[in-house]
Amino acid sequence: MSNNEIEMSRSNFNVDHIAHAVPNIEDAISQYKRVFGAKASNIKIIEKQDIKIAIVSFANLKIELMEPLSEKSPIASYLQKNPKGGLHHYCLSVDDVNQSYEDQKEKKINIISEPTKGYHGRNLYFIHPSEVCGALIEVEEHEKE
Amino acid sequence: MSNNEIEMSRSNFNVDHIAHAVPNIEDAISQYKRVFGAKASNIKIIEKQDIKIAIVSFANLKIELMEPLSEKSPIASYLQKNPKGGLHHYCLSVDDVNQSYEDQKEKKINIISEPTKGYHGRNLYFIHPSEVCGALIEVEEHEKE
Repeated sequence: MSNNEIEMSRSNFNVDHIAHAVPNIEDAISQYKRVFGAKASNIKIIEKQDIKIAIVSFANLKIELMEPLSEKSPIASYLQKNPKGGLHHYCLSVDDVNQSYEDQKEKKINIISEPTKGYHGRNLYFIHPSEVCGALIEVEEHEKE
Repeated sequence: MSNNEIEMSRSNFNVDHIAHAVPNIEDAISQYKRVFGAKASNIKIIEKQDIKIAIVSFANLKIELMEPLSEKSPIASYLQKNPKGGLHHYCLSVDDVNQSYEDQKEKKINIISEPTKGYHGRNLYFIHPSEVCGALIEVEEHEKE
């Protein structure tokens, strides 16, 4: 693949959502409703990732609320450092997540895991925070309409 | 103002950008380019806020990179806790930021400052992280086309 083709394949990144780690998801839903009048989805248990999630919808973007299900959850260690919660990562979506993964591996970018299916059935992976000034960034496949 | 009117005025929040605090803005721009092929604006000095900023554009959303200009900058204290950088806040935009401020004050929501003009000339204020599970959230006026 030429450099030009790599650049073209990159231009398609969209911000899909912001992930907000919280100690109590019911409280977080109430706070988003009180402060912004924002609506939230039902709460879902994601056993594979050891978290509960709910989606808060703003006009153009989703906020993913995440509460750990146990002390072993990766979100639990984040909350030890940030007990009140905080911004855990953001997610970029792309047309072809496997191609994006291969392109980034070729550039020796530090990727935390190979693409795996998320709770929504789409493939995703995480880029190590050392690659982008301390920010954890998820890459996942665009949601099909 | 009735509750219904308040709810209507709330439904218009958009996510405008994600703010990423970084120790070195030139390095951050290079990293976003290398990892995602993302383009960045020129770097601007914002003396009022004691920061340098640059905007990275993804297809649907902006990332605001912020580097402190001095140890007195609020971003400097964030970087003391997160020396490699990290996700500092996100920003919601709304049609009428003064109305949004008044509505939220009426609900006794803890707001850090009265609306003040940002570097772009639009009014903005910040909601205290205690109101939304540890996340710092900025509210600003929609960018006019």
